[in-house]
Amino acid sequence: MMLPNKFIYFFAAEQAEGHAGMKELLGGKGANLAEMTAMGLPVPPGFTISTEMCQVFYQMGQTLPVQLKENVMLALARVEKILGKKFGDRTNPLLVSVRSGSRASMPGMMDTILNLGLNDETVVGLAEQSRNPRFAWDSYRRFMTMYSDVVMGMNSSLLEVELEDLKHRKKYHKDSELTVEDLQNLIERYKFQIHESTGQTFPRDPVEQLWGAIQAVFRSWNTPRALTYRELHGYPDSWGTAVNIQAMVFGNLGDDSATGVAFTRNPSTGEKAFFGEFLTNAQGEDVVAGIRTPLPLTRQNALKSSEKGATSGSLEEIMPEAFAQLEAIYQRLEKHYRDMQDIEFTIERGKLFMLQTRNGKRTARAAVKIACDMLDEKLITEQEALLRVSPQSLDQLLHPTLDPKDKKINLAKGLPASPGGASGQVVFSSEMAAEWAKDGKKVILVRVETSPEDIDGMIAAQGVLTTRGGMTSHAAVVARGMGKCCVAGCGEAEVDYRNNEMRANGFVVKQGDLITLDGGTGEVFLGQVNTIQPSLDGDFERVMKMADKYRKLGLRANADTPHDARVARDFGAEGIGLCRTEHMFFGPDRIDVVRKMILAQTREERVAALDQLLPMQKSDFIGIFQAMSGFPVTIRLLDPPLHEFLPHSEGETKELAQRLGWSLEQVQIKVRNLKEFNPMLGHRGCRLAITYPEIYQMQVRAIAEAVLAVKGKATVKPEIMIPIVGTEGELKRMKALVDHEIKTVQNQHSATFDYQVGTMIELPRAALIADELAQSAEFFSFGTNDLTQTTMGISRDDAGRFLGTYVSEGILEADPFTTIDQKGVGKLVEKAVELGRGIRSNIKLGICGEHGGDPESVKYFNSIGLHYVSCSPYRVPIARLAAAQAALQQRKVEH
Amino acid sequence: MMLPNKFIYFFAAEQAEGHAGMKELLGGKGANLAEMTAMGLPVPPGFTISTEMCQVFYQMGQTLPVQLKENVMLALARVEKILGKKFGDRTNPLLVSVRSGSRASMPGMMDTILNLGLNDETVVGLAEQSRNPRFAWDSYRRFMTMYSDVVMGMNSSLLEVELEDLKHRKKYHKDSELTVEDLQNLIERYKFQIHESTGQTFPRDPVEQLWGAIQAVFRSWNTPRALTYRELHGYPDSWGTAVNIQAMVFGNLGDDSATGVAFTRNPSTGEKAFFGEFLTNAQGEDVVAGIRTPLPLTRQNALKSSEKGATSGSLEEIMPEAFAQLEAIYQRLEKHYRDMQDIEFTIERGKLFMLQTRNGKRTARAAVKIACDMLDEKLITEQEALLRVSPQSLDQLLHPTLDPKDKKINLAKGLPASPGGASGQVVFSSEMAAEWAKDGKKVILVRVETSPEDIDGMIAAQGVLTTRGGMTSHAAVVARGMGKCCVAGCGEAEVDYRNNEMRANGFVVKQGDLITLDGGTGEVFLGQVNTIQPSLDGDFERVMKMADKYRKLGLRANADTPHDARVARDFGAEGIGLCRTEHMFFGPDRIDVVRKMILAQTREERVAALDQLLPMQKSDFIGIFQAMSGFPVTIRLLDPPLHEFLPHSEGETKELAQRLGWSLEQVQIKVRNLKEFNPMLGHRGCRLAITYPEIYQMQVRAIAEAVLAVKGKATVKPEIMIPIVGTEGELKRMKALVDHEIKTVQNQHSATFDYQVGTMIELPRAALIADELAQSAEFFSFGTNDLTQTTMGISRDDAGRFLGTYVSEGILEADPFTTIDQKGVGKLVEKAVELGRGIRSNIKLGICGEHGGDPESVKYFNSIGLHYVSCSPYRVPIARLAAAQAALQQRKVEH
Repeated sequence: MMLPNKFIYFFAAEQAEGHAGMKELLGGKGANLAEMTAMGLPVPPGFTISTEMCQVFYQMGQTLPVQLKENVMLALARVEKILGKKFGDRTNPLLVSVRSGSRASMPGMMDTILNLGLNDETVVGLAEQSRNPRFAWDSYRRFMTMYSDVVMGMNSSLLEVELEDLKHRKKYHKDSELTVEDLQNLIERYKFQIHESTGQTFPRDPVEQLWGAIQAVFRSWNTPRALTYRELHGYPDSWGTAVNIQAMVFGNLGDDSATGVAFTRNPSTGEKAFFGEFLTNAQGEDVVAGIRTPLPLTRQNALKSSEKGATSGSLEEIMPEAFAQLEAIYQRLEKHYRDMQDIEFTIERGKLFMLQTRNGKRTARAAVKIACDMLDEKLITEQEALLRVSPQSLDQLLHPTLDPKDKKINLAKGLPASPGGASGQVVFSSEMAAEWAKDGKKVILVRVETSPEDIDGMIAAQGVLTTRGGMTSHAAVVARGMGKCCVAGCGEAEVDYRNNEMRANGFVVKQGDLITLDGGTGEVFLGQVNTIQPSLDGDFERVMKMADKYRKLGLRANADTPHDARVARDFGAEGIGLCRTEHMFFGPDRIDVVRKMILAQTREERVAALDQLLPMQKSDFIGIFQAMSGFPVTIRLLDPPLHEFLPHSEGETKELAQRLGWSLEQVQIKVRNLKEFNPMLGHRGCRLAITYPEIYQMQVRAIAEAVLAVKGKATVKPEIMIPIVGTEGELKRMKALVDHEIKTVQNQHSATFDYQVGTMIELPRAALIADELAQSAEFFSFGTNDLTQTTMGISRDDAGRFLGTYVSEGILEADPFTTIDQKGVGKLVEKAVELGRGIRSNIKLGICGEHGGDPESVKYFNSIGLHYVSCSPYRVPIARLAAAQAALQQRKVEH
Repeated sequence: MMLPNKFIYFFAAEQAEGHAGMKELLGGKGANLAEMTAMGLPVPPGFTISTEMCQVFYQMGQTLPVQLKENVMLALARVEKILGKKFGDRTNPLLVSVRSGSRASMPGMMDTILNLGLNDETVVGLAEQSRNPRFAWDSYRRFMTMYSDVVMGMNSSLLEVELEDLKHRKKYHKDSELTVEDLQNLIERYKFQIHESTGQTFPRDPVEQLWGAIQAVFRSWNTPRALTYRELHGYPDSWGTAVNIQAMVFGNLGDDSATGVAFTRNPSTGEKAFFGEFLTNAQGEDVVAGIRTPLPLTRQNALKSSEKGATSGSLEEIMPEAFAQLEAIYQRLEKHYRDMQDIEFTIERGKLFMLQTRNGKRTARAAVKIACDMLDEKLITEQEALLRVSPQSLDQLLHPTLDPKDKKINLAKGLPASPGGASGQVVFSSEMAAEWAKDGKKVILVRVETSPEDIDGMIAAQGVLTTRGGMTSHAAVVARGMGKCCVAGCGEAEVDYRNNEMRANGFVVKQGDLITLDGGTGEVFLGQVNTIQPSLDGDFERVMKMADKYRKLGLRANADTPHDARVARDFGAEGIGLCRTEHMFFGPDRIDVVRKMILAQTREERVAALDQLLPMQKSDFIGIFQAMSGFPVTIRLLDPPLHEFLPHSEGETKELAQRLGWSLEQVQIKVRNLKEFNPMLGHRGCRLAITYPEIYQMQVRAIAEAVLAVKGKATVKPEIMIPIVGTEGELKRMKALVDHEIKTVQNQHSATFDYQVGTMIELPRAALIADELAQSAEFFSFGTNDLTQTTMGISRDDAGRFLGTYVSEGILEADPFTTIDQKGVGKLVEKAVELGRGIRSNIKLGICGEHGGDPESVKYFNSIGLHYVSCSPYRVPIARLAAAQAALQQRKVEH
């Protein structure tokens, strides 16, 4: 067994053997205690057993080497010497806290044991020293409760029952009514109960106590919860946890003592003001427990929270000296750590002690403001400011969010199809939605599925809920385009149109009842939940501009209409990476023409319908080209199987037959014939164009005529993209078709323009033969949605029944439709990049799946050298920041 | 321009500059003419312009170098000298034939021009020399017809019209009534008509004629038909064609002349007997044209074909000398080429000339017999014998086939779901099928889809036709298991249950009408077509045994029942590579229990249903283990999505609800909830077992109990296979589940047995992370059906609408569900093999997709080193032979 050279890192009196950079060895807590000590801040003396010892513990079959014990005793002796107290001494006993601490904070591990070192003898010494016997005996009682639970594995409710029994017998209401005698009796009961329950005697020897606590910390590294958490986050087991042993200080020694937590700036707004709360005569756990209401730190905050201009007290007022010292320390800490700090402190009889400091968590709004402010204060650089804001959190700034403090009644959970929060009255039809909205009501449109006929209802509603259909269903796609909240495929809820009601989780929701959607999580709640409206300010704009300065990835948007294109451009998109032409087909004025084209019995009928569609498509493209003038626009030719455009219900089919003047049976037969077992893998994309070339011909003509129509008014760079390519032959044919049609239009108008032809890479085979495809393709756009579906063999629309379990149980690290699966799908993307570049070194490489808006995925795409990502307009800011961070992190790694 | 060293290869009088091994340079025809000449056989003298000149022709922009002309004239002079005739001479003219000839026979190229060298002068010389003016002028007329068509690009029907007009005017019925004068007049009309139509004068100069013909041959290399054919077969354009120029001999110089074709053995039965037919006083084209009925070569065959023991004549009787010479030659040729020969000959005034020899095409039955006979004759080795039989053709020996000579009326085309031919009366329900079959009627069961309720009807029927569903539909899978002919997914036909009729191709087929299915092509015909019953004889068994001697690939079968297992074993399977446990679920006695399990509202209900299934599954496994005693049995745990087991129609749903005592609505809601958008990519395989582990637990228990039940009676090697694995976590969990359940059963019975756990590789991701999977998997079985679907993004059940076009237009070389796509799917298989072996060098590797029975694919799997292929029982013989050929060919390449 190889033992590390050094087991223990001491910190006390401005001297520390560790520092903040040693998180791997000392854990976050230990490293920061050392750092603060070295800064000369008042930290109670103590020492950290390094994470290396945790590895030794497991290598030795959960035992510890004797050498550690010797070292711990030596370190303890140093603490005794500094404080003039002795561990286990019956007159002036040293008490310690024992805390775990890994390099990243990790739930499931042992947290804290306080007051360790107390027994029947030392408690007497503590009572005398503190001149507060009640404090001493109460500390003893608390210690026994904590220790028996955490170290001895006892069910702590058994001791709770003893306490409650006693209070009941004595008719006490509060713990504070317990007398010293009560506590002494209670402690005897505790000893008995612990022995009954665990078969072990509560350890009297402080050294034995300490040894038990250290081992408990190491054991807690492998609790099931900690293991799962590490598996989920990909943290290796080898990290291990450190153990921090530190002299106790007491905030509960009387009214001149206190304990509190503070943020150096407001974690909710980012405002530069000292912010926090404290309790006098309390230990740390009391602040968290919420039995007494803590007071604010500053007078100003105390004034804010009071009603009539008089404060109910603040640290600034009650303990001005300690406050002044704390204020000075927070300013030093912020300058030192160059970030907003989350600190814990204790005041023992007027003397301030620092127990913890760490970078503070904050809202997106606060993160943006703090980053900008610190930049202005010259505390941090632009690069650092950018890395301080979590891209994912920006969603909070772009959509209304549900108030996290509001109570919520769970109704059901579906797919998080389009972010944002919304409350409203339930309606079950689009007509009703439009009508009620006209009357000023806020409504949530609830449907089994939506179809193009529902557009008006969706516009009128605050949010949309469907019980069928996935992330790419009509409802999901349209809602994302509108930036409107949507929960899709919520199979747990059952819609009953006949009775105008929805059943879920035992509730029956009737028309007009209030429900709330969280489109960011897919949750549906009963009743109204308050929403917080987003607001974009100058700081946001400033962060975005900075991001643009550092990112290497280009940023485009998936946009299908001139409106989407404008929204995307306002959010900073530098082009369109995916314009889905079929979404234009769903417009209420054209869907019937599209259906005529699909139901055509002859080529002539089909061409006639396409001729009707041509001017419509052309005008769409004109609008988009104008909105994106100067930027490239990637247009994907028709992709979905034709039956997606046909009506689903018998009612709609009947109406369509009437409008077309066909018999119902005729339409039904055609609809049935077009039905597919697995439409995702069916007759779609370029496969349609091999069978019916006239469809793509019309679309290419519309693009070409639109380019010529805006000449002089807008600068257009059309990139024509072929979907569902799996073979070289398909792409060759499609490129020939595109080139021929454009040449024809150019000849007719005696004009020319530049354009590119490229392919989606969305099938594994396309990635595997990317070298062949690069012969014809001037660009690749990775359709990572479909590529994920095919590579993993998972239909996104059907995955609801198992994907949740897969992620929560760690079979998958993340939902592969949210964050790209690097191990599987990524390998194919990398292969295609390599093969494509091998043939055409300047081939343009982008990605237009939903992953384009996911920060983790953006980082990955940056690392493999793609040229741009494209995502939905509302995710463009997220992607911009993520791209900048990716570039900065890459630079760090490379330097 | 680099010219080849040698343009022309001469052959005459036992001397030839080429030989049979020079097919690449001389084409098949030229090489064999050279070979026969060198053998001393009577071949008319001539020469071959090599294929290299074809390349020169295209490199020079479709022109030829002057050097070629000089060489051709020199070679021609040599022929003149040998024959004492002169090309273009008006007294004793030399005439030649010009033929194309590539290294492989290829439709679409120019075939033959005969009698080249005739014009107004030389025709007179020919008339005098032959003492047959009518022959001479008729030859001239024929030459003009052919030449103007092939070389001058004229529509030949214009000359036909002239001929018919003349016959009409003269009231002739046959061409032979034309007089010399008639022919002379006709030739003048021809000259006029050719000039009118092409704007060119018919060339008089024989050299110019020859030059035109040579260029026409080279040009014909690039006709669209030839190009498509080459693309389809992967033949490179660079091969080129040779040109064969050979002195004419005439079988139409009178009754002492003749022309014929012969096979050295019977190409239909393989019988060792000279076989062929001839016509006296005829040119080659007359035999093919079928205007006169040719006579047999041998007296014996003549006797066979006559009715009353008297022959209507044979070459043996009519020209005994020439026949004897021919007989001697055929024996020499067979010995020389060591294969059955297909020969062409001409007898000119009693003198025999050989015009062609090549290896003859034959039926499967003949191929097997000839290979065995020649082996017995010590003409060929075992290895050669094996390579002489086309594995694919063995299907003819295993299933009834439609008589190719019978007339057929096309009704529709569907998917070739299960091979064989069958005729019968149409019935539209399984009840009717069973009833009519009981009355001794032969019926074809026609359904939109079949379900487990149709089993009895399928057993009763000669064949099954469905209008929906693909190659993996219930009908297809069950029919293949039964070895029964099936055409599935025949969308062109429309079934109308209400009126008991089917409409297709303009026909209305009513109940009781006769139709015929070809399960090998997917064709459906109206009326009855004669079927040829298969018969397996000793030769077949002998070839199979020889194949086993040489193949390296193991051979297993996909079999789900004890019956299938026995059939497979009889066909030579050495184990089961895929036992689909779900097919057991479809049994009529258990489907309702399965449905109870699926519709269970609680885990308890589900477990109760599974408990009912356990003894059924166990008894199935016992039967299979006994049938396969001594061989490994790979059992795949439940794979398809649960909704596949639920009823589809409202009627069936109603019945089910009644049987279960549920309300119709309850069942409907459950059925609807289980429905999936893309079931192929849905909640299936191990994903089901992550959600409902109890299903796999029951299956594993059934396997383990079955193993113990047959102990002592059968040697069992169970291999438990997990389907739809895409992640390491899934396989780890499943392996733990299997190990735990088996351990439990073993403990309960205090007995142990060996087993293996492995995984399907059927998702691209599984192939990409095969190294991780190999940590848990003891074997990989490539599920190439699903792997093809996911890699190419093509649903086999939906591909009907475009896959045909893809193959016929050369976008895909072959149907990737028949022959594995090496470029795409194959890359993933190879990757998985590499990664898997890297972790576990002895990992067992097999394939159980339908590709296991496709010879091309088998060859590929052999080349990448898999251990075995597994295919449906009726394809086992095909795979055995294919595996042997693959091993032999590989050996050849490596030596």
